[in-house]
Amino acid sequence: MEKLSSMKNIVFLKLGGSLITDKSSAYTAKREIIDQLSIQIRDAMAENPSLRIIIGNGGGSYGHYAVIEHDVTDGIALKKNAIGFSYVQKAVTELNRIIVDSLVNKGVAAVSFHPSSAVTGNDGKIDSFCVDSLAEMVKVGLTPVMYGDIIVDSKRGSMIASTEMLITAAIEPLKRHGLQTNRVIHNGIVKGVLDKNGNVISQVSHRNFSRVKKSITKTEGYDVTGGMLHKLEESLKLAENKVQTLIINGVSARNLLKNALLDKKIIGTVIR
Amino acid sequence: MEKLSSMKNIVFLKLGGSLITDKSSAYTAKREIIDQLSIQIRDAMAENPSLRIIIGNGGGSYGHYAVIEHDVTDGIALKKNAIGFSYVQKAVTELNRIIVDSLVNKGVAAVSFHPSSAVTGNDGKIDSFCVDSLAEMVKVGLTPVMYGDIIVDSKRGSMIASTEMLITAAIEPLKRHGLQTNRVIHNGIVKGVLDKNGNVISQVSHRNFSRVKKSITKTEGYDVTGGMLHKLEESLKLAENKVQTLIINGVSARNLLKNALLDKKIIGTVIR
Repeated sequence: MEKLSSMKNIVFLKLGGSLITDKSSAYTAKREIIDQLSIQIRDAMAENPSLRIIIGNGGGSYGHYAVIEHDVTDGIALKKNAIGFSYVQKAVTELNRIIVDSLVNKGVAAVSFHPSSAVTGNDGKIDSFCVDSLAEMVKVGLTPVMYGDIIVDSKRGSMIASTEMLITAAIEPLKRHGLQTNRVIHNGIVKGVLDKNGNVISQVSHRNFSRVKKSITKTEGYDVTGGMLHKLEESLKLAENKVQTLIINGVSARNLLKNALLDKKIIGTVIR
Repeated sequence: MEKLSSMKNIVFLKLGGSLITDKSSAYTAKREIIDQLSIQIRDAMAENPSLRIIIGNGGGSYGHYAVIEHDVTDGIALKKNAIGFSYVQKAVTELNRIIVDSLVNKGVAAVSFHPSSAVTGNDGKIDSFCVDSLAEMVKVGLTPVMYGDIIVDSKRGSMIASTEMLITAAIEPLKRHGLQTNRVIHNGIVKGVLDKNGNVISQVSHRNFSRVKKSITKTEGYDVTGGMLHKLEESLKLAENKVQTLIINGVSARNLLKNALLDKKIIGTVIR
């Protein structure tokens, strides 16, 4: 365990729902891909022992189907369907457990961090994020894995907090605990933001955003939290606070995720 | 969903590890007993719709064996065994999921509340308990189920927070959220605190505690969190704050737990 003597740098790593599940098939995890990612994460941490990662996994076909199946898109307040919260929580927790188990099996001291126990919402926006445990987990050498989750919303009863929303909301309070987020890595099915010809756009900023926006193609399958456009908008907000975002597909080339974690040159899109 | 117009009364219900698991056998849940308890909880809530319950389940043979198997009794700091945290978290979460699933299957809108995401420790004591989500869950009509869990400890790396410790730590912060704890019910394998002849002592207070202490028999199997004596000591602390504790075995007579939840007269020990 380390003492908090100075600011520590952390990397947020999002494992996209489209990559780790089959979005066209309900409740189906892609276990081989998950294991490949786990190995790269372990190897990056072995090569750079000072690397501190907070992982967030998307809900993929677990989250999206559960939300629709149990009719909680607009919350649980009006329809008095409180038990819908229970079912969605079960589904997204199950996928998170698969990710954490894979990491632990590969030797990473990964632990679940459950947003529904630490984050509250109000009218579809994150209202409070208690990061005490999250910060302490990182400081004692654990690798927390959070996930897109159903959380309580004081107006709607419930809301879906996407991994992107959670990452954005965590950055400031983590700073007060001595944890500085340098980079957010979105590891998904696309190799980066693609132009109309399918080539990776290497960099996005406020200057070229309106142009880039037009060329964004829709993501496959269900996505209740908005896909690539949502990611870019959240990333541009982060860029204003000097947090760099990287969009990659970590299994599209050998050790791509590992190299991205180690801040080596790779194919992908940087948002800054 | 309800508006917070006035103080709401809540009951904490602990489902003892000895009752819901086979403490002499690792990772073995007693599913029939769990289902019986779930039905009684559902029926009590149906009979009194204003009843608000926060459940906490003991770790039983999941928690106790995992802690010993992965050698985290004294924390993860000194032995650099951070991954032990991962394994214990997995074990206790698994038992909690069995409880929540049982409740949901019987129609209770139960959700997991994960202490490791909201509670931190320092040198074996609870340091902070962020109850925002817990309180909001109750207010939107959910029934949170927390559990004895491994949590981060800024000195030892990790510590085990027993359900008793968690309940005691939650009561004051919940009050600030408008939730007043009236009663704590310990639902375990014993019908109450027993005297030397095996009869239930109907009441324990500071006045007769030293006498009662001598007659307490040890609980069966492993118990890393201290058994009946620990329960009584925590309960006497609560009594100082006007919170009444009840020790019962809710499956020892028909509808005993249900009647206890409805504050009807039943066989058990009251600590006040």
